[in-house]
Amino acid sequence: MLYLVKRKEALLAPLAEALAVAAAEVKVCTSCGNIDTIDPCSICQDQSRDITTLIVVADVADLWALERTEAHRARYHVLGGVLSALDGVGPSDLSIAALVERCRNEPIEEVILAIGATIEGQTTAHYIIDQLDQLVRPSPPLRVSRLAHGVPVGGELEYLDEGTVSAALRARTPVSGGPR
Amino acid sequence: MLYLVKRKEALLAPLAEALAVAAAEVKVCTSCGNIDTIDPCSICQDQSRDITTLIVVADVADLWALERTEAHRARYHVLGGVLSALDGVGPSDLSIAALVERCRNEPIEEVILAIGATIEGQTTAHYIIDQLDQLVRPSPPLRVSRLAHGVPVGGELEYLDEGTVSAALRARTPVSGGPR
Repeated sequence: MLYLVKRKEALLAPLAEALAVAAAEVKVCTSCGNIDTIDPCSICQDQSRDITTLIVVADVADLWALERTEAHRARYHVLGGVLSALDGVGPSDLSIAALVERCRNEPIEEVILAIGATIEGQTTAHYIIDQLDQLVRPSPPLRVSRLAHGVPVGGELEYLDEGTVSAALRARTPVSGGPR
Repeated sequence: MLYLVKRKEALLAPLAEALAVAAAEVKVCTSCGNIDTIDPCSICQDQSRDITTLIVVADVADLWALERTEAHRARYHVLGGVLSALDGVGPSDLSIAALVERCRNEPIEEVILAIGATIEGQTTAHYIIDQLDQLVRPSPPLRVSRLAHGVPVGGELEYLDEGTVSAALRARTPVSGGPR
Protein backbone atom coordinates (compact mmCIF):
# COMPACT_ATOMS: atom_id res chain seq x y z
CA MET A 1 0.00 0.00 0.00
CA LEU A 2 2.84 2.37 0.92
CA TYR A 3 4.41 1.54 -2.44
CA LEU A 4 1.19 2.60 -4.17
CA VAL A 5 0.78 5.80 -2.11
CA LYS A 6 4.37 6.87 -2.79
CA ARG A 7 3.66 6.65 -6.52
CA LYS A 8 0.08 7.83 -6.34
CA GLU A 9 0.02 9.70 -9.65
CA ALA A 10 1.58 6.82 -11.61
CA LEU A 11 -0.05 3.87 -9.87
CA LEU A 12 -2.79 4.67 -7.36
CA ALA A 13 -4.92 6.92 -9.55
CA PRO A 14 -4.97 4.51 -12.57
CA LEU A 15 -5.68 1.59 -10.22
CA ALA A 16 -8.61 3.46 -8.65
CA GLU A 17 -9.93 4.24 -12.11
CA ALA A 18 -9.56 0.66 -13.35
CA LEU A 19 -11.37 -0.65 -10.28
CA ALA A 20 -14.18 1.86 -10.79
CA VAL A 21 -14.56 0.77 -14.43
CA ALA A 22 -14.57 -2.88 -13.37
CA ALA A 23 -17.15 -2.18 -10.67
CA ALA A 24 -19.37 -0.44 -13.22
CA GLU A 25 -18.89 -2.92 -16.08
CA VAL A 26 -18.86 -6.35 -14.44
CA LYS A 27 -22.26 -7.99 -14.22
CA VAL A 28 -23.53 -11.28 -12.89
CA CYS A 29 -25.40 -13.18 -15.60
CA THR A 30 -29.05 -13.41 -14.57
CA SER A 31 -29.38 -16.74 -16.34
CA CYS A 32 -26.34 -18.78 -15.22
CA GLY A 33 -24.55 -16.72 -12.56
CA ASN A 34 -21.32 -16.33 -14.54
CA ILE A 35 -19.40 -13.03 -14.31
CA ASP A 36 -19.05 -11.06 -17.54
CA THR A 37 -19.42 -7.54 -18.92
CA ILE A 38 -22.68 -8.43 -20.65
CA ASP A 39 -25.90 -9.97 -19.38
CA PRO A 40 -26.78 -12.68 -20.41
CA CYS A 41 -23.10 -13.64 -20.41
CA SER A 42 -21.17 -14.54 -23.56
CA ILE A 43 -21.48 -18.27 -22.79
CA CYS A 44 -25.27 -18.09 -22.49
CA GLN A 45 -25.41 -16.02 -25.72
CA ASP A 46 -23.10 -18.39 -27.63
CA GLN A 47 -25.33 -20.13 -30.19
CA SER A 48 -22.71 -22.76 -31.06
CA ARG A 49 -22.93 -24.40 -27.63
CA ASP A 50 -24.74 -27.60 -26.77
CA ILE A 51 -27.94 -26.31 -25.13
CA THR A 52 -29.14 -29.78 -24.12
CA THR A 53 -26.43 -30.14 -21.47
CA LEU A 54 -26.20 -28.03 -18.33
CA ILE A 55 -23.08 -28.20 -16.16
CA VAL A 56 -23.78 -27.25 -12.53
CA VAL A 57 -20.82 -25.76 -10.63
CA ALA A 58 -20.49 -24.36 -7.12
CA ASP A 59 -18.54 -21.27 -8.05
CA VAL A 60 -17.51 -19.06 -10.98
CA ALA A 61 -13.90 -20.25 -10.44
CA ASP A 62 -15.06 -23.81 -11.16
CA LEU A 63 -16.83 -22.62 -14.33
CA TRP A 64 -13.58 -21.07 -15.51
CA ALA A 65 -11.66 -24.26 -14.60
CA LEU A 66 -14.05 -26.25 -16.80
CA GLU A 67 -13.84 -23.71 -19.64
CA ARG A 68 -10.04 -24.02 -19.61
CA THR A 69 -10.30 -27.76 -20.29
CA GLU A 70 -12.39 -27.12 -23.44
CA ALA A 71 -13.75 -30.61 -22.82
CA HIS A 72 -17.43 -29.85 -23.16
CA ARG A 73 -18.88 -26.76 -24.80
CA ALA A 74 -22.14 -26.66 -22.90
CA ARG A 75 -23.94 -24.12 -20.75
CA TYR A 76 -23.45 -23.67 -17.02
CA HIS A 77 -25.35 -22.96 -13.85
CA VAL A 78 -23.44 -21.39 -10.96
CA LEU A 79 -24.90 -22.25 -7.55
CA GLY A 80 -22.93 -19.59 -5.69
CA GLY A 81 -21.54 -21.99 -3.09
CA VAL A 82 -22.30 -25.33 -1.49
CA LEU A 83 -24.65 -26.33 1.32
CA SER A 84 -22.84 -26.04 4.64
CA ALA A 85 -24.38 -26.41 8.08
CA LEU A 86 -21.21 -24.99 9.67
CA ASP A 87 -21.25 -21.80 7.61
CA GLY A 88 -25.04 -21.53 7.77
CA VAL A 89 -25.54 -21.95 4.02
CA GLY A 90 -28.97 -23.45 3.28
CA PRO A 91 -30.72 -24.31 0.01
CA SER A 92 -32.32 -20.86 -0.22
CA ASP A 93 -28.87 -19.21 -0.18
CA LEU A 94 -27.92 -21.04 -3.40
CA SER A 95 -29.55 -20.70 -6.79
CA ILE A 96 -31.06 -24.19 -6.67
CA ALA A 97 -34.63 -23.03 -7.28
CA ALA A 98 -33.41 -21.18 -10.39
CA LEU A 99 -31.68 -24.38 -11.55
CA VAL A 100 -34.92 -26.37 -11.22
CA GLU A 101 -36.74 -23.64 -13.14
CA ARG A 102 -34.19 -23.80 -15.95
CA CYS A 103 -34.57 -27.58 -16.14
CA ARG A 104 -38.34 -27.10 -16.44
CA ASN A 105 -38.24 -24.44 -19.12
CA GLU A 106 -35.13 -25.07 -21.22
CA PRO A 107 -34.56 -28.00 -23.61
CA ILE A 108 -32.05 -29.59 -21.21
CA GLU A 109 -31.54 -33.36 -21.48
CA GLU A 110 -28.55 -33.86 -19.19
CA VAL A 111 -27.47 -32.12 -16.00
CA ILE A 112 -23.81 -32.72 -15.08
CA LEU A 113 -23.09 -32.02 -11.41
CA ALA A 114 -19.50 -30.76 -11.54
CA ILE A 115 -19.25 -30.13 -7.82
CA GLY A 116 -16.12 -30.94 -5.77
CA ALA A 117 -15.87 -34.30 -4.03
CA THR A 118 -15.90 -32.71 -0.57
CA ILE A 119 -18.53 -33.54 2.07
CA GLU A 120 -20.37 -30.25 1.44
CA GLY A 121 -20.15 -30.72 -2.33
CA GLN A 122 -21.62 -34.21 -2.15
CA THR A 123 -24.39 -33.07 0.21
CA THR A 124 -25.26 -30.33 -2.27
CA ALA A 125 -25.24 -32.82 -5.16
CA HIS A 126 -27.61 -35.16 -3.29
CA TYR A 127 -29.96 -32.30 -2.50
CA ILE A 128 -30.05 -31.24 -6.16
CA ILE A 129 -30.63 -34.82 -7.33
CA ASP A 130 -33.62 -35.03 -4.94
CA GLN A 131 -35.03 -31.75 -6.24
CA LEU A 132 -34.62 -32.76 -9.89
CA ASP A 133 -36.15 -36.18 -9.24
CA GLN A 134 -39.32 -34.42 -8.09
CA LEU A 135 -39.42 -32.21 -11.17
CA VAL A 136 -42.37 -32.99 -13.43
CA ARG A 137 -41.62 -32.07 -17.01
CA PRO A 138 -42.54 -33.29 -20.46
CA SER A 139 -40.31 -35.95 -22.05
CA PRO A 140 -37.41 -36.50 -22.65
CA PRO A 141 -36.50 -37.58 -19.11
CA LEU A 142 -33.76 -35.56 -17.47
CA ARG A 143 -30.48 -37.44 -17.04
CA VAL A 144 -28.33 -36.40 -14.08
CA SER A 145 -24.66 -37.36 -13.85
CA ARG A 146 -21.69 -36.45 -11.69
CA LEU A 147 -17.97 -36.17 -12.38
CA ALA A 148 -16.03 -39.43 -12.16
CA HIS A 149 -14.05 -40.08 -9.00
CA GLY A 150 -10.61 -41.57 -9.39
CA VAL A 151 -6.90 -41.08 -9.67
CA PRO A 152 -5.98 -37.55 -10.80
CA VAL A 153 -3.76 -37.29 -13.88
CA GLY A 154 -0.14 -37.61 -12.77
CA GLY A 155 -1.23 -39.14 -9.46
CA GLU A 156 0.73 -41.93 -7.80
CA LEU A 157 -1.20 -44.52 -5.83
CA GLU A 158 1.14 -44.44 -2.87
CA TYR A 159 0.29 -40.83 -2.06
CA LEU A 160 -3.47 -41.02 -2.57
CA ASP A 161 -6.00 -41.36 0.21
CA GLU A 162 -7.84 -44.65 0.69
CA GLY A 163 -11.20 -43.24 -0.40
CA THR A 164 -9.83 -42.21 -3.78
CA VAL A 165 -8.00 -45.50 -4.35
CA SER A 166 -11.07 -47.57 -3.53
CA ALA A 167 -13.32 -45.32 -5.67
CA ALA A 168 -10.87 -45.68 -8.57
CA LEU A 169 -10.81 -49.45 -8.08
CA ARG A 170 -14.61 -49.74 -8.00
CA ALA A 171 -15.03 -47.54 -11.08
CA ARG A 172 -12.27 -49.25 -13.07
CA THR A 173 -12.53 -49.05 -16.86
CA PRO A 174 -12.15 -51.99 -19.23
CA VAL A 175 -9.27 -51.51 -21.65
CA SER A 176 -9.23 -54.84 -23.46
CA GLY A 177 -10.97 -58.22 -23.70
CA GLY A 178 -14.53 -59.14 -22.82
CA PRO A 179 -17.55 -56.92 -23.47
CA ARG A 180 -16.54 -53.28 -23.27
CA MET B 1 23.81 -40.99 14.67
CA LEU B 2 25.72 -39.35 17.53
CA TYR B 3 22.64 -39.83 19.68
CA LEU B 4 22.73 -43.56 18.90
CA VAL B 5 26.51 -43.89 19.50
CA LYS B 6 26.29 -42.11 22.86
CA ARG B 7 23.73 -44.68 24.03
CA LYS B 8 25.22 -47.62 22.20
CA GLU B 9 24.36 -50.28 24.78
CA ALA B 10 20.74 -49.17 25.10
CA LEU B 11 20.02 -48.20 21.48
CA LEU B 12 22.67 -49.07 18.93
CA ALA B 13 23.15 -52.75 19.80
CA PRO B 14 19.39 -53.57 19.80
CA LEU B 15 18.96 -51.63 16.54
CA ALA B 16 21.80 -53.58 14.89
CA GLU B 17 20.23 -56.81 16.09
CA ALA B 18 16.75 -55.86 14.86
CA LEU B 19 18.13 -54.94 11.43
CA ALA B 20 20.03 -58.24 11.23
CA VAL B 21 16.84 -60.16 12.08
CA ALA B 22 14.90 -58.17 9.45
CA ALA B 23 17.62 -58.80 6.86
CA ALA B 24 17.49 -62.53 7.57
CA GLU B 25 13.70 -62.86 7.80
CA VAL B 26 12.31 -60.63 5.05
CA LYS B 27 11.76 -62.37 1.74
CA VAL B 28 10.42 -61.30 -1.63
CA CYS B 29 7.48 -63.49 -2.67
CA THR B 30 8.54 -65.52 -5.73
CA SER B 31 4.96 -65.50 -7.02
CA CYS B 32 3.78 -61.89 -6.69
CA GLY B 33 6.84 -59.85 -5.60
CA ASN B 34 5.33 -58.73 -2.27
CA ILE B 35 7.62 -58.45 0.79
CA ASP B 36 6.84 -60.77 3.69
CA THR B 37 8.53 -63.14 6.13
CA ILE B 38 7.20 -66.18 4.28
CA ASP B 39 7.38 -67.23 0.62
CA PRO B 40 4.84 -67.45 -1.02
CA CYS B 41 3.64 -64.39 0.90
CA SER B 42 0.60 -64.42 3.18
CA ILE B 43 -1.58 -62.81 0.48
CA CYS B 44 -0.70 -65.49 -2.10
CA GLN B 45 -1.34 -68.19 0.53
CA ASP B 46 -4.67 -66.69 1.65
CA GLN B 47 -7.31 -69.14 0.40
CA SER B 48 -10.20 -66.72 1.07
CA ARG B 49 -9.07 -64.31 -1.66
CA ASP B 50 -10.57 -63.94 -5.11
CA ILE B 51 -8.09 -65.85 -7.30
CA THR B 52 -9.79 -64.85 -10.57
CA THR B 53 -8.66 -61.22 -10.24
CA LEU B 54 -5.05 -60.07 -10.38
CA ILE B 55 -4.19 -56.48 -9.44
CA VAL B 56 -0.98 -55.28 -11.11
CA VAL B 57 0.96 -52.59 -9.20
CA ALA B 58 4.28 -50.89 -9.86
CA ASP B 59 5.64 -51.15 -6.36
CA VAL B 60 5.16 -52.88 -3.01
CA ALA B 61 4.14 -49.50 -1.55
CA ASP B 62 1.20 -49.42 -4.00
CA LEU B 63 0.22 -52.95 -2.97
CA TRP B 64 0.09 -51.83 0.64
CA ALA B 65 -1.91 -48.72 -0.33
CA LEU B 66 -4.49 -50.97 -2.01
CA GLU B 67 -4.54 -53.38 0.94
CA ARG B 68 -5.29 -50.48 3.29
CA THR B 69 -8.45 -49.66 1.32
CA GLU B 70 -9.77 -53.22 1.80
CA ALA B 71 -11.74 -52.56 -1.38
CA HIS B 72 -10.88 -55.73 -3.25
CA ARG B 73 -9.49 -58.88 -1.65
CA ALA B 74 -7.70 -60.21 -4.71
CA ARG B 75 -4.12 -61.24 -5.47
CA TYR B 76 -1.38 -58.94 -6.68
CA HIS B 77 1.52 -58.80 -9.08
CA VAL B 78 4.32 -56.33 -8.30
CA LEU B 79 6.19 -55.13 -11.40
CA GLY B 80 9.10 -53.67 -9.46
CA GLY B 81 8.88 -50.26 -11.16
CA VAL B 82 7.60 -48.65 -14.35
CA LEU B 83 9.09 -48.39 -17.83
CA SER B 84 11.26 -45.28 -18.05
CA ALA B 85 13.50 -44.29 -20.94
CA LEU B 86 15.15 -41.63 -18.77
CA ASP B 87 16.11 -44.03 -16.00
CA GLY B 88 16.96 -46.83 -18.45
CA VAL B 89 14.21 -49.15 -17.22
CA GLY B 90 13.12 -51.50 -20.00
CA PRO B 91 10.53 -54.33 -20.10
CA SER B 92 13.14 -56.93 -19.09
CA ASP B 93 13.87 -55.01 -15.86
CA LEU B 94 10.26 -55.45 -14.73
CA SER B 95 8.48 -58.70 -13.97
CA ILE B 96 6.22 -58.41 -17.03
CA ALA B 97 7.16 -61.82 -18.47
CA ALA B 98 6.27 -63.38 -15.11
CA LEU B 99 2.92 -61.58 -15.21
CA VAL B 100 2.14 -63.00 -18.67
CA GLU B 101 3.11 -66.48 -17.41
CA ARG B 102 0.77 -66.13 -14.43
CA CYS B 103 -2.07 -65.08 -16.76
CA ARG B 104 -1.39 -68.18 -18.85
CA ASN B 105 -1.23 -70.66 -15.97
CA GLU B 106 -3.53 -69.33 -13.25
CA PRO B 107 -7.36 -69.17 -13.41
CA ILE B 108 -7.28 -65.38 -13.79
CA GLU B 109 -10.29 -63.75 -15.47
CA GLU B 110 -9.56 -60.07 -14.86
CA VAL B 111 -6.31 -58.12 -14.67
CA ILE B 112 -6.66 -54.69 -13.02
CA LEU B 113 -3.80 -52.34 -13.91
CA ALA B 114 -3.49 -50.26 -10.71
CA ILE B 115 -0.59 -48.20 -11.99
CA GLY B 116 -0.25 -44.45 -11.34
CA ALA B 117 -1.57 -41.98 -13.93
CA THR B 118 1.92 -40.64 -14.71
CA ILE B 119 3.44 -40.77 -18.21
CA GLU B 120 5.69 -43.70 -17.27
CA GLY B 121 2.80 -45.51 -15.57
CA GLN B 122 0.57 -45.16 -18.62
CA THR B 123 3.36 -46.30 -20.96
CA THR B 124 3.84 -49.37 -18.79
CA ALA B 125 0.09 -50.04 -18.80
CA HIS B 126 -0.03 -49.83 -22.62
CA TYR B 127 2.92 -52.20 -22.94
CA ILE B 128 1.27 -54.74 -20.62
CA ILE B 129 -2.05 -54.48 -22.49
CA ASP B 130 -0.19 -55.24 -25.75
CA GLN B 131 1.54 -58.24 -24.20
CA LEU B 132 -1.68 -59.61 -22.74
CA ASP B 133 -3.54 -59.08 -26.03
CA GLN B 134 -1.04 -61.43 -27.69
CA LEU B 135 -1.48 -64.07 -25.00
CA VAL B 136 -3.12 -67.22 -26.34
CA ARG B 137 -4.94 -69.08 -23.58
CA PRO B 138 -8.02 -71.23 -23.23
CA SER B 139 -11.30 -69.47 -22.50
CA PRO B 140 -12.53 -67.51 -20.60
CA PRO B 141 -11.10 -64.42 -22.35
CA LEU B 142 -8.91 -62.26 -20.14
CA ARG B 143 -10.46 -58.92 -19.21
CA VAL B 144 -8.04 -56.06 -18.61
CA SER B 145 -9.11 -52.88 -16.82
CA ARG B 146 -7.43 -49.83 -15.34
CA LEU B 147 -8.22 -47.59 -12.37
CA ALA B 148 -10.73 -44.82 -13.06
CA HIS B 149 -9.39 -41.33 -13.63
CA GLY B 150 -11.22 -38.46 -12.01
CA VAL B 151 -11.59 -36.10 -9.11
CA PRO B 152 -9.89 -37.40 -5.94
CA VAL B 153 -12.08 -37.62 -2.84
CA GLY B 154 -12.07 -34.23 -1.13
CA GLY B 155 -10.84 -32.57 -4.33
CA GLU B 156 -12.05 -29.14 -5.41
CA LEU B 157 -12.36 -28.44 -9.13
CA GLU B 158 -10.65 -25.09 -8.93
CA TYR B 159 -7.34 -26.61 -7.83
CA LEU B 160 -7.28 -29.58 -10.20
CA ASP B 161 -5.32 -29.72 -13.44
CA GLU B 162 -7.16 -29.57 -16.75
CA GLY B 163 -6.37 -33.18 -17.67
CA THR B 164 -8.07 -34.47 -14.54
CA VAL B 165 -11.11 -32.21 -14.93
CA SER B 166 -11.66 -33.23 -18.53
CA ALA B 167 -11.10 -36.93 -17.72
CA ALA B 168 -13.65 -36.65 -14.90
CA LEU B 169 -16.09 -34.91 -17.24
CA ARG B 170 -15.74 -37.54 -19.97
CA ALA B 171 -16.08 -40.42 -17.51
CA ARG B 172 -19.05 -38.89 -15.70
CA THR B 173 -21.38 -41.32 -13.94
CA PRO B 174 -25.19 -41.28 -14.20
CA VAL B 175 -26.83 -40.71 -10.84
CA SER B 176 -30.49 -40.51 -11.84
CA GLY B 177 -32.86 -40.61 -14.78
CA GLY B 178 -32.46 -42.37 -18.11
CA PRO B 179 -30.86 -45.78 -18.52
CA ARG B 180 -28.17 -46.29 -15.87
